[in-house]
Amino acid sequence: MDTQAYMEALGRQARAASRQLAAASTDAKNRALRAMAAAVRAQRESLLAANARDLEAARAAGLDAALIDRLALTDKVIATMAEGLEQVAALPDPVGEITDMKRRPSGIQVGKMRVPLGVIGIIYESRPNVTADAAALCLKSGNAAILRGGKEALHSNQAIAACVRAGLAEAGLPESAVQVVETADRAAVGAMITMPEYVDVIVPRGGKGLIERISRDARVPVIKHLDGNCHVYVDDDADPAKVVPIVENAKTQRYAPCNTTESLVVARGVAQRFLPEIGRMLTGKGVEIRGCPKTLAILREAGIGQQHLREATEQDWREEYLAPIIAVKVVDGLDAAIEHINTYSSQHTEAIITENYSSAMRFLREVDSASVMVNASTRFADGFEYGLGAEIGISTDKIHARGPVGLEGLTSQKWIVFGNGEVRR
Amino acid sequence: MDTQAYMEALGRQARAASRQLAAASTDAKNRALRAMAAAVRAQRESLLAANARDLEAARAAGLDAALIDRLALTDKVIATMAEGLEQVAALPDPVGEITDMKRRPSGIQVGKMRVPLGVIGIIYESRPNVTADAAALCLKSGNAAILRGGKEALHSNQAIAACVRAGLAEAGLPESAVQVVETADRAAVGAMITMPEYVDVIVPRGGKGLIERISRDARVPVIKHLDGNCHVYVDDDADPAKVVPIVENAKTQRYAPCNTTESLVVARGVAQRFLPEIGRMLTGKGVEIRGCPKTLAILREAGIGQQHLREATEQDWREEYLAPIIAVKVVDGLDAAIEHINTYSSQHTEAIITENYSSAMRFLREVDSASVMVNASTRFADGFEYGLGAEIGISTDKIHARGPVGLEGLTSQKWIVFGNGEVRR
Repeated sequence: MDTQAYMEALGRQARAASRQLAAASTDAKNRALRAMAAAVRAQRESLLAANARDLEAARAAGLDAALIDRLALTDKVIATMAEGLEQVAALPDPVGEITDMKRRPSGIQVGKMRVPLGVIGIIYESRPNVTADAAALCLKSGNAAILRGGKEALHSNQAIAACVRAGLAEAGLPESAVQVVETADRAAVGAMITMPEYVDVIVPRGGKGLIERISRDARVPVIKHLDGNCHVYVDDDADPAKVVPIVENAKTQRYAPCNTTESLVVARGVAQRFLPEIGRMLTGKGVEIRGCPKTLAILREAGIGQQHLREATEQDWREEYLAPIIAVKVVDGLDAAIEHINTYSSQHTEAIITENYSSAMRFLREVDSASVMVNASTRFADGFEYGLGAEIGISTDKIHARGPVGLEGLTSQKWIVFGNGEVRR
Repeated sequence: MDTQAYMEALGRQARAASRQLAAASTDAKNRALRAMAAAVRAQRESLLAANARDLEAARAAGLDAALIDRLALTDKVIATMAEGLEQVAALPDPVGEITDMKRRPSGIQVGKMRVPLGVIGIIYESRPNVTADAAALCLKSGNAAILRGGKEALHSNQAIAACVRAGLAEAGLPESAVQVVETADRAAVGAMITMPEYVDVIVPRGGKGLIERISRDARVPVIKHLDGNCHVYVDDDADPAKVVPIVENAKTQRYAPCNTTESLVVARGVAQRFLPEIGRMLTGKGVEIRGCPKTLAILREAGIGQQHLREATEQDWREEYLAPIIAVKVVDGLDAAIEHINTYSSQHTEAIITENYSSAMRFLREVDSASVMVNASTRFADGFEYGLGAEIGISTDKIHARGPVGLEGLTSQKWIVFGNGEVRR
């Protein structure tokens, strides 16, 4: 098969379908989503059978246990997938929303209408449930989707795609509204990210390496999520009752998510007061502390065992550990904290703990990250917690969508003008 | 000079300045803009002298008259430049605006804060006044700017940059907030568009060739404006009193702007009624008509001279003439008009003339262009007419900024969270 020609054919079909989807009614889109959920439930057996083929091949190829775990469809994953489709059906339709209408001196009324982006390319790794999640979000936002999952999940993805197509057909929507790339050829990704005539935006979901490669080679805009090196800054005016609970939650609730805190920054004036208790809490949970010399001196003096401590290197300030490790730095105060964070953070999510109004406002304004918080855990940086209802990813870009990306991030706004025969003078 | 190293040095300085600008007060930014305007007026003689050097070199190099015209600084251009700086000072500051604050079930309040993008690279051709305009918009929106004008305008741009720096210094803002690239080496552009660590977005202003080259090679997001193949569609239910005035204004008020109509689409049911009058108006103004066979038959029957008419080729439907030429096509009705426009338009601006509510609403929703209008001239697609106060360009992209781009298009929104010690469950 000529992969380039195959991808162009998918692109042409997606572009044609996107025109129909842009005009589709909310009711048709919701009926399709509910029919997809019903199909996923009804096809449970065939989904499991397709997945078994993928799992067998993955085991035969000696793929690692974590990958096989992500690849596996279970009854629970299937049920969650169906519920997810129904949840997206229940969300408000973002398409067609008209805002900011203003009458201008010329007599025209000008405003904005929210519209789909067109065709969205999703590139993801081994989790087959992403096929249903991404299809649902693209459809509800009125976009056609081209989905390219990991080659290990090909049979599972095809089986899920059959349910998606059945749902589309039941609602009278074009089946090419959601297309799954059915070749394992890696050239398919190269083709997909270089067809601006057919694909309007790429959303890669996967490791930093995948996303960096795609961003480097794409000729289409990419909504990308690189790493999450999130910070908590304990200010001079921190409320003692809030410090340990927030640091504990931000670092230790879960170690793998991108919104987990990886670096703690503490004002010199309160380091002696808070660091021993923070250190005992963290090391009690098995977290290794990589500290600046001042941090280590305070923690050693407080009796924290040397086995929990390491001197931080320059690399530690940049690191996304995704593990029970935290970097800790004592700084002079707010200015130094903002400077440190803006230098080393991945611009994902940062929080300040303070009771000082002006410090809070300066931190909010001057820290250049997608989410900036006062007196809350960085773990809240999430589409569901923010009320978006669903999330296709978290963007660390500044252009277009920043932070958690829901349905709105998959849309654009065009200008609309209501005239009454006006001409320009 | 090592151009790569030079550009990286500019980038580093811009990144550092952008942090200070993000925190700069509205008052400081406005004082700088007004001081720049004063400097431009005070330095009139030295601006004219620097420009004379550029003009002399351009004439010696045999550059064409249109380019020399764009290159020339006159007393009027200098006065307009100073007024433009003051107008931007008078606009509201977009930075820091907080919107959409909502309390979530967890107790946190979540909303958005408008923030600068960071560092903006502007690449333009021979007009030196763009140096002042672009500097003003970037500064007001809290961004650092790296400006790369045409090499023909180097002395003029340096002289304007000196006024800009004087204004920045007077307001206590860093002089590297606005930097003009002072090498004519073309490699400077290549370096600038491939430094995502130092440049957040590129705004190219110039011909389609320049913009396509930059978009192809950039490793940084580009807010781009390709061509403006704008359409007016005369619907079956058009108000006869509105048809000729809108078509006349949209096509003939000025031929060069991107929002001038290049293609007219007419419903079959009213072609016989409107085309003769439209044809007489257009040909009376010297506009050549490139029509479909049906159009030509109607116009010939109405007695329009053969010297004004040509049969349209496929290429005519795609063409941005920027000249007294118009393509005219008769279609079956609304569906065919939307299909034709979505196939051939450059997604800039399209208008429908109709009294039919449902046709107007379908056209607004289904035509996939940056500006879609009902009963108004396409010439209104403009930052000033839309009330943006100023315009850095018109985007034909869908991602981030679409249509006329003002101060808001040079900003992003970050998520902010007001908490009270909340942690995630």
